[in-house]
Amino acid sequence: MNKLVSLRTLMKEKNIDAYVIYSGDAHGSSYVADYWKSRAWLSGFTGSSGTVVVTETHAGLWTDGRYFVQAEAELSGTEFTLYKMDMPDVPTYKEFLAENLPQGGKLGFDGRVVGVKEFNKIKDALEDKAISYAYGEDLMDKVWKDRPSLPTEPAFEHEPRFACTPASEKLGAVRREMAEHGATSYLVTAMDGIAWLTNIRGRDIAFTPVVYAYAVITTDTAHIFIDRNKVAPFATKLTAQGFTLHDYDEIVGFLASLPGGTLVYDPGRINVLLSEAVPSNVTVETDLDTDIITMLKAPRTPAELANIRYAFLKEGTVLVRCLKWLKEQKDITELTEGDVVRKLTSLRELEADFVSDGFSTIVAIGGNASQAHYSSGPVGDKLKPEGFLLIDTGAQYLDGTTDTTRTIAVGPLTPEMKRHYTLVLKGYMRLARAVFPKGTAGVQLDVLARAALWAEGLDYRHGTGHGIGYCLAVHEGPQGVHKKGKVAFEPGMMISNEPAFYVDGVYGIRTENIEVVTKKAETEYGEFYGFETLMYCPIDTTAIDASILTQDEIDYLNAYHAKTYEMLAPRLNDDERAWLKEATKAINAVLVFS
Amino acid sequence: MNKLVSLRTLMKEKNIDAYVIYSGDAHGSSYVADYWKSRAWLSGFTGSSGTVVVTETHAGLWTDGRYFVQAEAELSGTEFTLYKMDMPDVPTYKEFLAENLPQGGKLGFDGRVVGVKEFNKIKDALEDKAISYAYGEDLMDKVWKDRPSLPTEPAFEHEPRFACTPASEKLGAVRREMAEHGATSYLVTAMDGIAWLTNIRGRDIAFTPVVYAYAVITTDTAHIFIDRNKVAPFATKLTAQGFTLHDYDEIVGFLASLPGGTLVYDPGRINVLLSEAVPSNVTVETDLDTDIITMLKAPRTPAELANIRYAFLKEGTVLVRCLKWLKEQKDITELTEGDVVRKLTSLRELEADFVSDGFSTIVAIGGNASQAHYSSGPVGDKLKPEGFLLIDTGAQYLDGTTDTTRTIAVGPLTPEMKRHYTLVLKGYMRLARAVFPKGTAGVQLDVLARAALWAEGLDYRHGTGHGIGYCLAVHEGPQGVHKKGKVAFEPGMMISNEPAFYVDGVYGIRTENIEVVTKKAETEYGEFYGFETLMYCPIDTTAIDASILTQDEIDYLNAYHAKTYEMLAPRLNDDERAWLKEATKAINAVLVFS
Repeated sequence: MNKLVSLRTLMKEKNIDAYVIYSGDAHGSSYVADYWKSRAWLSGFTGSSGTVVVTETHAGLWTDGRYFVQAEAELSGTEFTLYKMDMPDVPTYKEFLAENLPQGGKLGFDGRVVGVKEFNKIKDALEDKAISYAYGEDLMDKVWKDRPSLPTEPAFEHEPRFACTPASEKLGAVRREMAEHGATSYLVTAMDGIAWLTNIRGRDIAFTPVVYAYAVITTDTAHIFIDRNKVAPFATKLTAQGFTLHDYDEIVGFLASLPGGTLVYDPGRINVLLSEAVPSNVTVETDLDTDIITMLKAPRTPAELANIRYAFLKEGTVLVRCLKWLKEQKDITELTEGDVVRKLTSLRELEADFVSDGFSTIVAIGGNASQAHYSSGPVGDKLKPEGFLLIDTGAQYLDGTTDTTRTIAVGPLTPEMKRHYTLVLKGYMRLARAVFPKGTAGVQLDVLARAALWAEGLDYRHGTGHGIGYCLAVHEGPQGVHKKGKVAFEPGMMISNEPAFYVDGVYGIRTENIEVVTKKAETEYGEFYGFETLMYCPIDTTAIDASILTQDEIDYLNAYHAKTYEMLAPRLNDDERAWLKEATKAINAVLVFS
Repeated sequence: MNKLVSLRTLMKEKNIDAYVIYSGDAHGSSYVADYWKSRAWLSGFTGSSGTVVVTETHAGLWTDGRYFVQAEAELSGTEFTLYKMDMPDVPTYKEFLAENLPQGGKLGFDGRVVGVKEFNKIKDALEDKAISYAYGEDLMDKVWKDRPSLPTEPAFEHEPRFACTPASEKLGAVRREMAEHGATSYLVTAMDGIAWLTNIRGRDIAFTPVVYAYAVITTDTAHIFIDRNKVAPFATKLTAQGFTLHDYDEIVGFLASLPGGTLVYDPGRINVLLSEAVPSNVTVETDLDTDIITMLKAPRTPAELANIRYAFLKEGTVLVRCLKWLKEQKDITELTEGDVVRKLTSLRELEADFVSDGFSTIVAIGGNASQAHYSSGPVGDKLKPEGFLLIDTGAQYLDGTTDTTRTIAVGPLTPEMKRHYTLVLKGYMRLARAVFPKGTAGVQLDVLARAALWAEGLDYRHGTGHGIGYCLAVHEGPQGVHKKGKVAFEPGMMISNEPAFYVDGVYGIRTENIEVVTKKAETEYGEFYGFETLMYCPIDTTAIDASILTQDEIDYLNAYHAKTYEMLAPRLNDDERAWLKEATKAINAVLVFS
C-alpha cells in the first residue's frame, strides 16, 4: 500500500484531521538516528530540516532556502507540495493548519519530537479552532513497516584519564545547583548532558558520541533511562557511583509518579510527551537562566584542558598533512571535494584515541563555499586551480572535540579576494587578541570580528563563535559570540572564532580556530580575561594583502605561525616539517611611500 | 511642633505603622521641583537621592555612597539613623520594613511618587506580613505647613521653527503606533514625552525645560492634564491641534472613568496612584518593547538636526572661550571650581535662544574628578596648577540640548597620566569612527570605547553613552552605549560618546562629544550606519602620548581639529581665533626607531 494511503487510513481510524511529521528526535539533538527519520521516509525528501503535514486531501513539505533545489528534485512526481519557507506569500505550516483544519478538528503528531515551545506556538496559531491534540502515539510506527530500530550500538565508558572528573563528583555539583534553585528533582533530556554527567559515550548518532537516554536526579537518587544492554559491561560501576538504571521507555511513567516537590528542566529541550507527563502536584520551575548541566559543563577543568591541548596537536598534524597534500597536487582537478573529506578522515585514523569526524566536513571549491553550510556529499565538485578552497572540519577524539576552518588559495587571486581574505583575518585576530573584564558576554565582543568588514559595508550572516563540547557536540552552549550571546565568559569556556565573508556564487572565505577563555590579569579594576588559541595550523599567507595589516597584526600572525611550527614540528617527518617551515614563515609589513 | 512628632501624630490617627518618604516626583523625573522635596525638609538631608522611613519609635534615612559624608553631617544631632546602602550588614529599607512592621500592619506612602515596579518589590518583601497599604494621601501635605506649591512658572510654546513638526502631526504618529499595538488609549506620564508631543516647554524643574503634566491619547481624543494658567496664552492653539485641556489633578478621575478597551503606558514610568486608578474593565498592555513616544521622539528629524548642529556651534563657541580663559589664567589658584561653572553660564547667556544650563556643570580639579558625578556646589575647591581639570557641561538652547566633557592639562602631567588620557581618547575615536549594519545596538559597540583600556587591565565603571533630548532631558532613552543598550540604532538617534578613566582620589579623565547616527552606505550586505560628531571643541593635544596612537588615529584627530577651526573661527574674534588655531593645530606621529 502507498505510504500516504496507509497513514491516512490510520488517521481516519483515529479521527485525526491533520498529522505533522518533524525532523528531530526526542532530545533536541542536531543529528538524529535513522529511527527518527520518518519525514524523509514518508516524503522522500532527505535534507536535514523539513516538516511534513498530511491531511485527507493534501500532503505538504516545508523546508528552508538551503534545500529548495534538493526538495524540488526529490519531491517531483510525488503528491507532496513544496512550501518554500520565508518566501513571499508562502504560508508557514502553522498558518496552513489554521487555514485547513476544521473547527473542533484533531491534530496529531509524535509528542516525543515536538518541543513544548513549539507546541505552545501551535496552540496559539490554532486558538480560534477548538482543536484537540493527539500526541501520545507515533502513527509512523504502524505505517513504516521496516522502520529501523533505535540504535543498539554498545556504549562505552569515557575513561577516567579522559573524563577527568568522576560521575559521583559531577552528581554532587548538580545537587548543589539544584539546592541553590530550590529543586527537588531535575530532568535531563539533552543527550550530551547525560553523557557529561555519567561519563558514558556512545555511537547512537553520527558525529556526536552520545547515547539515547534520559536522567532524573533527585536530592538523594539518580536515575538513568537507557537501553540497558548498551551499558551492561559497566552497569555495576554506574550503580556504584549512585545511578539507578531504568529502561529508556520508563521515563514517562517515572515522571508521572513523581511524588511532588519542585522539578527543573531545560525548557528549550523538553518535549511535549514528557512535559505533559509531569503530575500537577509537582511545581515546575523553568526560570533558570540556563540549564544546570549546560552551565556546569561549559567551563573546562584544567585536567580536561590539558587533554584538549593534546587533541588539538593531533588535529593540527592532520590538517598540516592535508594542506601539504593539497598544495602539492600536480593537477588538483583530479580531486573532488569528497576526496578531501575522505583524506582528512584517513589522516585522523592515524592519530590516537580518534572516535569519528566531528561533523560532516565542508570542502567547498569556488562558489560552493559561499553557502556557509555547503555539503559536497561523498563526491561533490571537482577541484579547480582557481581562487579559494574552503575546508571546515572537526574531529571527535576521546581527549577533545575540534573544529577548524581554513581557506586556501588553490589558484590565482584577485586583489579584491586578497583584501576580503585579509579583512576576515583582521577580524579573527582582533577577537583572538581581545582582553575583557569578568562579566563580559559574546554579544559585546562580536563587533571585534566584524568591524574591519563593516567599515567597508561588508558582513557575514552568521554568528562569529559557538561553544564546543569535550568529546561531545561540536556546538554546545551556553556561551557564544553573536547577537544573542548573553552568557558571561568564564575561564575554561571554549568558543570558535570564525569570521567569514561570502560573495554569492563566487567564493567564500572563513578562518576559524577554537579558543579557550583564560585569566589574563587582575587589577584594581577587576579580573580581566582573554583567549588562548588551542589550534595550531598555518593560515595561508599567500592570500594576504599585508598592506592593510597593522604592524601589531603582522607581529601577532608571525608569532602564531612561529608557535605553530614549534608545536607541530616534533610530530612531523622531515618532508612535512620542511613544508610547514615554509607555510609558517614570517611575513613582512608592506612599506608604503606616498 | 517638631516635624517628626506631627508626622507621627498623623500616622497614629490613620493607624499607619510606618511611613516612607521618597525623593522623586510623580513622573519619574531626574530633577524635581521644590514641592516634591519633603524628604529633604523632614530629615534635613539635601542630597538628590535618599529614602526616609518613619515608625512610631524610629526614623531612618537610606542613601548611597555618593552621599555618606554629606548625610552624616546633615543628620548629625537629629533623630535620624543613617543607613549606608550597599555596605555590609546594612539592611535595605524594605528589609527594615519587613523586620519592623507588625503582622497585619499598615504601610503608608505617597502613591504618586512610587513606581509600580518598586511597589511590587515592596509587596514581595512584605508578603508574609499581611500588610495593608495607604498610598492615596500624602501625609506630608498636612505636616509640611509652608510646603512650596507646585511650580507656577508660565509654560511657553516651542515655536514651529524649533519644534519643526506640528503637534497635530505627532499626534497622528502616536495614534498609528497605538493602532499597531491594538491600544485604544495611551497614558503618557513622562514630562519630556508630553513636551515633545505638544511642543510645549516650561520651567517647572531645574535644567530640563518641561511642565508638570499628564496626557491621555485615545483613538479620537487627546487630553492634557496641566495647570491651565501656565498654558493660557496659547490654549486655543492647543485646542486647535486636537488637545482638550484638564486640570493637573483630574488625571486620576479621568483614568478611573475610562470606558474599557486597551490601555498602554510606560510600565517603568507609572506611579501606583495612577496604575491603581485604572478600572478593571480596561486591559492594560505593558508588553511594548519601548514606550511609544520614547521610541517616536528618539530619531531626530532632518529639520531638528539642522537646528541642533547650530546649537552645537554656539556651545562650541562657549567652550572655546571658556578653555581659552582658563588656559590663559596667570594664576589659576585664584579661581574656584564654582567660578568656572559660572563662567560657562555667563558665556552661554551671550548666545541666542539660550534657556538654561542642561545639568549641574561638573568642574573638578585633580582627585575631585575621580568621582564621576562630582559636584563642586557654588564654590568648590580652588584650582591648582597640577595635572588635570575635568569639565562636563551642557546647555539647553531652544534649538538643541548639548553635553560635552573635556579634560585639560592645567599643570605638568606624568607619562602615565598622558598614557591614560590617550587610551581614553583612542576609545572615544574608535566609537566615533565605528561603522555598523542596521540592527546594531549599543551593547555591541561599547567594547570599541573600552578595548584600549581593557587591554591594559583598566576600565571605567559607567556606561559609554546615553541618548539626549532635543531642548529636553540631557539623558533620554531608549538607545545607549552600555551593557543594557539593546535598542537598535536608527539614523537620527543621538548618543553621547564618553569613555573615561579614573584613579581614585588622584585624577579623572573623560572625553565626551555628542554623536548622531547617520547612514554611511548601502551595499548588498545591507544598510550601514555610523556617527556624525555634532560637537566641535578642541581636545587638549598637550595631554596626548602620540606614540601609542596609530597613524589613522592621528589623521582622524587632526581632521577633527581642522574642522573644529573651520566651523568655529567665523564666530570668534581675532584673539580667540588665534588661540583656537593653536589649540587645533595638527599633531605628528612619533617615529620610533628600534
